[in-house]
Amino acid sequence: MRVDGEARRSIWLADDGESVEIVDQTRLPFAVELRRLETVADAADAIATMAVRGAPLIGVTAAYGLWLALREDASDASLDAARHQLLATRPTAVNLRWALDRVGAAVRPLPIAERAEAARAHAGELADADVATCRSLGEHGVRLIEEARSARPHAPVNVLTHCNAGWLACVDWGTALAPIYLAQRRGIPVHVWVDETRPRSQGALTAWELGQEGIAHTVVADNAGGHLMQRGQVDLCIVGTDRTTARGDVCNKIGTYLKALAAREHDVPFYVAAPSSSIDWSLDDGVAEIPIEERDGAEVSRVRGWLEGQGTLDVSVLPEKSAVANPAFDVTPAPLVTGLVTERGVCAASREGLAALFPEHAAGA
Amino acid sequence: MRVDGEARRSIWLADDGESVEIVDQTRLPFAVELRRLETVADAADAIATMAVRGAPLIGVTAAYGLWLALREDASDASLDAARHQLLATRPTAVNLRWALDRVGAAVRPLPIAERAEAARAHAGELADADVATCRSLGEHGVRLIEEARSARPHAPVNVLTHCNAGWLACVDWGTALAPIYLAQRRGIPVHVWVDETRPRSQGALTAWELGQEGIAHTVVADNAGGHLMQRGQVDLCIVGTDRTTARGDVCNKIGTYLKALAAREHDVPFYVAAPSSSIDWSLDDGVAEIPIEERDGAEVSRVRGWLEGQGTLDVSVLPEKSAVANPAFDVTPAPLVTGLVTERGVCAASREGLAALFPEHAAGA
Repeated sequence: MRVDGEARRSIWLADDGESVEIVDQTRLPFAVELRRLETVADAADAIATMAVRGAPLIGVTAAYGLWLALREDASDASLDAARHQLLATRPTAVNLRWALDRVGAAVRPLPIAERAEAARAHAGELADADVATCRSLGEHGVRLIEEARSARPHAPVNVLTHCNAGWLACVDWGTALAPIYLAQRRGIPVHVWVDETRPRSQGALTAWELGQEGIAHTVVADNAGGHLMQRGQVDLCIVGTDRTTARGDVCNKIGTYLKALAAREHDVPFYVAAPSSSIDWSLDDGVAEIPIEERDGAEVSRVRGWLEGQGTLDVSVLPEKSAVANPAFDVTPAPLVTGLVTERGVCAASREGLAALFPEHAAGA
Repeated sequence: MRVDGEARRSIWLADDGESVEIVDQTRLPFAVELRRLETVADAADAIATMAVRGAPLIGVTAAYGLWLALREDASDASLDAARHQLLATRPTAVNLRWALDRVGAAVRPLPIAERAEAARAHAGELADADVATCRSLGEHGVRLIEEARSARPHAPVNVLTHCNAGWLACVDWGTALAPIYLAQRRGIPVHVWVDETRPRSQGALTAWELGQEGIAHTVVADNAGGHLMQRGQVDLCIVGTDRTTARGDVCNKIGTYLKALAAREHDVPFYVAAPSSSIDWSLDDGVAEIPIEERDGAEVSRVRGWLEGQGTLDVSVLPEKSAVANPAFDVTPAPLVTGLVTERGVCAASREGLAALFPEHAAGA
């Protein structure tokens, strides 16, 4: 996607072939700063400080981190140490472990001299595979926007999204935003309602992405979605998912569930962009089985913003002594989900729907 | 209610009898600063800058503002000018006009020499009447908390509220918070989930009020309410209302509607504290008939907070070029409201329910 008119991914091999570069997401949306990762420590730091975020991007960054470690020292000990260092950055991120396991398994059997180059190649493949997945998901999803357009040909399609499931969370395209980017490129007029998404305000990242692509969008407080749907101002919702169960329950950023309830009340289609990597085939009942991460209350009691002359800073917004709770995700039960948009197509949010698209998993269930 | 252990109202006659004092709400919850209003210009400024806010409190402040004007010059011209000046501060506030009309009508027939004193007396009566209304409303509402306690005698009653409908919005007690204050004073263990209430973060005022009264509370992002109800962590919701229709539709702070939808989904009683002054007997269908105020987008794109060493300041949280929408209220249709808590009792949110409590209005309908 575009940044200041130039095509970019969220991570890429530097021109010198000696390092990788990222867009530093801790500075967005206030400043666009690229950061060069030259060592495994740089990669670990980028993940830990959330200069990179989003499950797919964290995995790819970790894979490149292994390469950076092996360039210096391709011994087994170095490989183990790098894996350990990278894994410690975000201990609960599923993609992180998966990417490290995959690259580690591929390079360990190789002669020392070939390991670094193989790790680099594997990391690049992971990145390209994520781009292809998101692009496919977008192709399937854009049809839903086209359908909404057919129903009301004289107005732009109003899409509501929550959190950031864009290219910044992936390598390119994004998940929930990929259909929107394709719609825009195909000349379908589209307007996006962007939830602010407290407490971390990831809606600002979504707004920034959309702005860079020249896509019409309006940011609203998380409180506004019910009102917008009640007044007929939303044609469809598309959100991402952090974890999807085999029957189609969706665990996504806190607040997703409230929007799904409003969408059902007003017959607004509610789609979830769910790449197969988000599906946990071992889980069924999302409410009962998915533990909800309770994050630092400071994300609620403080807000990060930008002040002219002082840059980014965190201000307190609550009385000091007030208790704070910060559940980071909620679960939207499958009956509230109109459809899951995957890289293989759109399906019903149900065991049968998913089994039809992913028979290899259904067989094992 | 208490501030640093001392009983306070949100507005009161100063000890010298020459001016009124307020708690400056633009400094809360970060600092408790009292402000003295000595002239009608001071009163107008306090309303315009939201040093005082909340419909009942705005009305009382305006009434005292007339007194301050008449102390200087009790002529008809002075009365007219003061009315004009005060009315211009918040042109859409219903209580503001009502209070000015009432005090104006009472003093205009009087001899010049008696006008100021009469205005002061009337303003005081308005304040006392508001306190009595809130107290009655609290007495009726506390029974709902007692009932919830009876159903689960071994746990504190978990109440969720949205925005600030506390004593800061009134003169004392508040509307939605009055039942909670009475519950605490009667020894009923209660815990309040406080919605942050973006974009103006009035949840911080609610948290501050509750903290000053020693009431257990936890602030959450507006996004969290659905999750809390899904997990059985909310026994009942109580919110305020800015405008209630004759059939019980409720127009309240944006986001109220989303919580009402979640409450219905999980069989959580959803009560609205609706003093009769909030009921607009001329309206029926809230969604169709109530215009929703669109406020300044800067309330969404900027956040006011506190920075050690710098005091309160506003930081930007969105990309500069992103469009912003800021609908300030939404409408919760009567079928989602379990009951209206008024100063005359609790009734169904329906034409029949309200008519039984307020037959004088039903007769005119």
